[in-house]
Amino acid sequence: MKILDYFTIGNLSAVAWEAGKPLVIEEVEVAPPQAMEVRVKILFTSLCHTDVYFWEAKGQTPLFPRIFGHEAGGIVESVGSGVTDLKPGDHVLPVFTGECKDCAHCKSEESNMCDLLRINTDRGVMLNDGQSRFSINGKPIYHFVGTSTFSEYTVVHVGCLAKINPAAPLDKVCILSCGISTGLGAALNVAKPKQGSTVAVFGLGAVGLAACEGARIAGAKRIIGVDLNSNRFNEAKNFGVTDFVNPKDHNKPVQEVLAEMTDGGVDRSIECTGSVAAMISAFECVHDGWGVAVLVGVPNKDDAFKTHPMNLLNERTLKGTFFGNYKPRSDIPSVVEKYMNKELELEKFITHEVPFSEINKAFEYMLQGKSIRCIIRMEA
Amino acid sequence: MKILDYFTIGNLSAVAWEAGKPLVIEEVEVAPPQAMEVRVKILFTSLCHTDVYFWEAKGQTPLFPRIFGHEAGGIVESVGSGVTDLKPGDHVLPVFTGECKDCAHCKSEESNMCDLLRINTDRGVMLNDGQSRFSINGKPIYHFVGTSTFSEYTVVHVGCLAKINPAAPLDKVCILSCGISTGLGAALNVAKPKQGSTVAVFGLGAVGLAACEGARIAGAKRIIGVDLNSNRFNEAKNFGVTDFVNPKDHNKPVQEVLAEMTDGGVDRSIECTGSVAAMISAFECVHDGWGVAVLVGVPNKDDAFKTHPMNLLNERTLKGTFFGNYKPRSDIPSVVEKYMNKELELEKFITHEVPFSEINKAFEYMLQGKSIRCIIRMEA
Repeated sequence: MKILDYFTIGNLSAVAWEAGKPLVIEEVEVAPPQAMEVRVKILFTSLCHTDVYFWEAKGQTPLFPRIFGHEAGGIVESVGSGVTDLKPGDHVLPVFTGECKDCAHCKSEESNMCDLLRINTDRGVMLNDGQSRFSINGKPIYHFVGTSTFSEYTVVHVGCLAKINPAAPLDKVCILSCGISTGLGAALNVAKPKQGSTVAVFGLGAVGLAACEGARIAGAKRIIGVDLNSNRFNEAKNFGVTDFVNPKDHNKPVQEVLAEMTDGGVDRSIECTGSVAAMISAFECVHDGWGVAVLVGVPNKDDAFKTHPMNLLNERTLKGTFFGNYKPRSDIPSVVEKYMNKELELEKFITHEVPFSEINKAFEYMLQGKSIRCIIRMEA
Repeated sequence: MKILDYFTIGNLSAVAWEAGKPLVIEEVEVAPPQAMEVRVKILFTSLCHTDVYFWEAKGQTPLFPRIFGHEAGGIVESVGSGVTDLKPGDHVLPVFTGECKDCAHCKSEESNMCDLLRINTDRGVMLNDGQSRFSINGKPIYHFVGTSTFSEYTVVHVGCLAKINPAAPLDKVCILSCGISTGLGAALNVAKPKQGSTVAVFGLGAVGLAACEGARIAGAKRIIGVDLNSNRFNEAKNFGVTDFVNPKDHNKPVQEVLAEMTDGGVDRSIECTGSVAAMISAFECVHDGWGVAVLVGVPNKDDAFKTHPMNLLNERTLKGTFFGNYKPRSDIPSVVEKYMNKELELEKFITHEVPFSEINKAFEYMLQGKSIRCIIRMEA
């Protein structure tokens, strides 16, 4: 890292030049933070499926060159005008969605879908001036979901930074920036299983395993993992999963299999795959009278969710959640505390670790289904 | 009424001999209550759409001759073996669904869908012996939903009787047996609008107006009535409705009209028509982030409920309710108390009154859309 002038920092970033091609570590200039922005020195970042999805650009309008990355832990380097909540040296987790604290959503106790800073995967620039803070020889490199953490330094809107306990190890709590909080919150904040209850979790990737961890913390007695890959069961046991169902092993709908296993249906279900068929199964497998199904996974097809209205009228509840219903600034610091209090176990999610120079290995591990989370160390 | 023998009572009942034909007041014998059954002297009964629906028998397997009626107030005449909760003289409201207090649903705080006594519109007999307690010259007359209140005396399972405050006027509180509690509970127990919030109610029949009354009691500031009949608005104002939307007056989906009226969507919606199209509108008109849609109306077609999963993932909640989530025995007495405390207004629901001999007029008023509730006085 060299200081180019008083404001602009020269640093190394992993640039995605085109869809699906390995990232290239480049010297990139990072402009100073503007009003309500913060420049953060990233110490650890991790790879999430959403990075891979947009890097592959199979479904969406491609936006390249771009700096991906949205799960990270870092330290505030400098702040722009109007920033009063953070100061240089503060420990922060960047979040792909924000909390302006001023819109109807932020003012509602029930929502975390900030009007101003809600996730926008199509925008590659900062809100303040519609420009990027990253450039190579004056040519802009696009941001990703306002975080772009695959970079030694990044610029983030203050509303997208959770200020956390400085004693928390950033190489662990960085994974709370996205996937783990999403699954954990879906269980703890939305499904809210009671002590002793039965929970089905569809999809045993990082988000699903975090939902299992949430169900375990809530005191669920039986946690049924549902996944098309039976190899996942062994690992899932560490996250509290007691039973495993592979829909491929049965010649009837998985909701019927689950209903038979549970005397009529599970108490709560959490859908973490994004498949519309799985969403329907996850809804229809909950018990009538009290069952609650929570949808987490985002579909990439334009399918409709369909069910017979009687499934609803028989007192089932269907709800969706976004980032586990956590408000990034207000709530994430308390999730970090759950880890500090040893209530939440994070180590078991971290299966791999690579230096920044080998960031493409993190993509390989994920594409091969080997990793839950791979930590990328920014400093060698 | 004459006592035929020590156990059997001769009484007058309104018998439906065939689908859609006027009821005929007949001398009918009412057998004594068997184990866990109670014989009730009905003082007041009222007509609900569900009676008319099954009397018309357009959608279901017809079951005739039958004694309809399921909203009523009465006094216990005698009790069968094993009945310890009720004694002769107690004031009761019969309910079309029950509470055995012993099954998983009754033991769950969240459900009122008793396994043993859940509504069964196809059964025309009592559970204990699979026989009817009604007969004419030895030929059985079928029961309806375990209540058959269009009769001076009826036999009801003890689990389908709410014991209420004897000071409560039965000619008013009898309407709490079904429709009014259904709508009221959908608002108070399920939608739970906050003080100052906006609620849309689809369908301004008795159930919908009761949902409006519930929203009013909960402190909703704006209650938007949605109905295809604009004449309903004037009457609905008495139930707290502040705005009215007739979907026919607009050339875009009503959910869009409501979103425009409310800066993005209503806080809560309650669907009381049973039309699947209205269910979809009721769901899609709630605000993202916190909106809750509650389905009450039962569809008579085999249509699917369909929506795009993103409508759910944007933190909307969809839930169905049955009998307003009230447990008949545990909760209905407290609804009666709400009326006694003048918190709940019942008089405005009662638009007509007829003597038992003119019960067919109650059907006419309802079919002509003139009545909300018509009370049928059993004693002249």
